[in-house]
Formats: sequence, structure tokens, C-alpha cells
Amino acid sequence: MLDSDYPGQQCSIARALEVVGERWTLLVLRDVFLGLHRFDELIASLGVTRTVLTHRLRKLVDEGVLERSRYQERPERFSYHTTEKGRALLPALMGLMRWGDAYYAGPAGPPRLLLHRGCGGALTDTQTCGRCAAAVGFDEVDAPLGPSFVASAAGTHGRAGRS
Amino acid sequence: MLDSDYPGQQCSIARALEVVGERWTLLVLRDVFLGLHRFDELIASLGVTRTVLTHRLRKLVDEGVLERSRYQERPERFSYHTTEKGRALLPALMGLMRWGDAYYAGPAGPPRLLLHRGCGGALTDTQTCGRCAAAVGFDEVDAPLGPSFVASAAGTHGRAGRS
Repeated sequence: MLDSDYPGQQCSIARALEVVGERWTLLVLRDVFLGLHRFDELIASLGVTRTVLTHRLRKLVDEGVLERSRYQERPERFSYHTTEKGRALLPALMGLMRWGDAYYAGPAGPPRLLLHRGCGGALTDTQTCGRCAAAVGFDEVDAPLGPSFVASAAGTHGRAGRS
Repeated sequence: MLDSDYPGQQCSIARALEVVGERWTLLVLRDVFLGLHRFDELIASLGVTRTVLTHRLRKLVDEGVLERSRYQERPERFSYHTTEKGRALLPALMGLMRWGDAYYAGPAGPPRLLLHRGCGGALTDTQTCGRCAAAVGFDEVDAPLGPSFVASAAGTHGRAGRS
């Protein structure tokens, strides 16, 4: 297996990447933030193997980023939710999302929107609401699918995976 | 080579990770932000092979995140600076850094500080200055080594790599 640590790097970015820098890990977190909590929901959304998802979830639980709870006994099934430590990754995730939106979204716009919950205004780059001008906390953000996502899914009849 | 793309993922986070999600890439960017611009400076800081660094730099230049300029003719040598697109990754990088600081820094504090340039106040989580209360732009941030970094480097007489 490829190393995922950064020996000799005395740096909080390197430490963070040792925990969430592996391929797929930040997309697992994205899906949990978006409301997918069960193993099979995550498999369907991500299209990864069960082995990869099991490995990523175990590490996130071990590091206290996600917590696991049993929702069914026979057979045993578990769901995953973010902890406070996990939710503290939202600024980094949203930073990546905004960057992808700005430079890779294409003319139809971003695949997912960031809106001030209850108000519906679009979030600005400074994390305020473009409609009511309030400062918006990371827990007050809705992220519905954008027009480009819907258009593409409808056009191809492809798998409408969550973005 | 390990795949670095996310087929089927209609998502700006996935697009961003296809560009900057490979191992070492975000640490290359960190070093360029911190003032290391030449190939040999980056090799010394990161401790990666020349092949890995060459691959990461080429991709970042191809994607317009860094720009390359020749600073010496015989032999040819190049330096790397961030573009506007590269600087737009600062919020994501700082999000990861703050998270690493919050959960992995240890009792001696973070290895690197984030200060309001000119004022010297520490940045708050909402990107304002803790001393003068001004909103601080990402280009108004100094990132000197913190006490924990200095202490550790002095204690081990190890390589004082940049964090």
C-alpha cells in the first residue's frame, strides 16, 4: 500500500493530509455531510470497492472524524455521522469545492450550490449571505444540486450520483 | 501509477482533488506560498525524489496553478510562482492547516502561526485579526514558525525543514 504519511514534515497541513489525504477519503466525508450515512449508500454514491470504503471509514472512525453507530442487529449494520472534529473539516472541504467551482465548473455552473439555510441566498466567498448579508455559519449551509448537475444527469440517463 | 481521477463523480471537490489531491502536491504548494521557488529548495524541504517533484510541478504548471520562469540559462534552471488560480487555493490549504493545528498540534502549539501582516495579531477562525479586528485577506497573512517548531528542531538537532 502506498505510504500516506509525511515523515520529516513538521506541519499541520501534512498532519491533516495524513488523516484525510488518501484517495476517496474527502469524498466519503462529503457524502456524510450531504446526508449519506449507511455503508451501502456510500458505496452506491462513490463507486468504490467495499474494501476501499471499509478502510477509509475505519480510519476516519479511529481518528474521531466520524462516529459509528449500529442501526440494525441481524445482520449487524452501522451508520456513520460526523463528530465535532469531522465538522471542523468543513472549511477545508468548502475551500476545495469553491476552487473547483471557480475553475472547473463549465458554463452551466457548479454541480452543487451553497445556500444560506432558510433564506436561500447564495454564499459569498467571505462566508456571508448574498441576499440578507448575514454571516453564515458552516452549519447553516444547504447544498442542493445545481442546474448543471441536473442537466447532465437528465441528458445522459446516467447514474445520478450525488455530487 | 495509482489513478488520480474520480470517474462518475460530478462534483467540484472531486475535480479539485484530481488536480491537487495527489500525495505531496498540496505540500509543494505550501512551500511555494512560504517562499520556496526553486526546484532544489523544494527538494530539500520536502525530501521527495526528483521524479516525484518533477511530476507534481509539471501537473501544477499544466493546470495553471503555478507558473514557471527561467532564472538561469547555463544550465537552465526554473523557478515556480503561484498564479491567481494557485492563490485561490489558499482558503482550502488554510482550512487544512487550522484543522491540523486544532487536533494534532500538541501542547507546545502549532508549528507555524498565522498572523495579520504588519499588525502581528493572530488570525481568528473567521479570518479576522485578533488584535485589530480587521477582516484579513489571504494575501495579508504572515506565517512564521511557531514556538513548537523551533523547540523541536533545537531539541533534536534534526533537519530544520520548513513546515
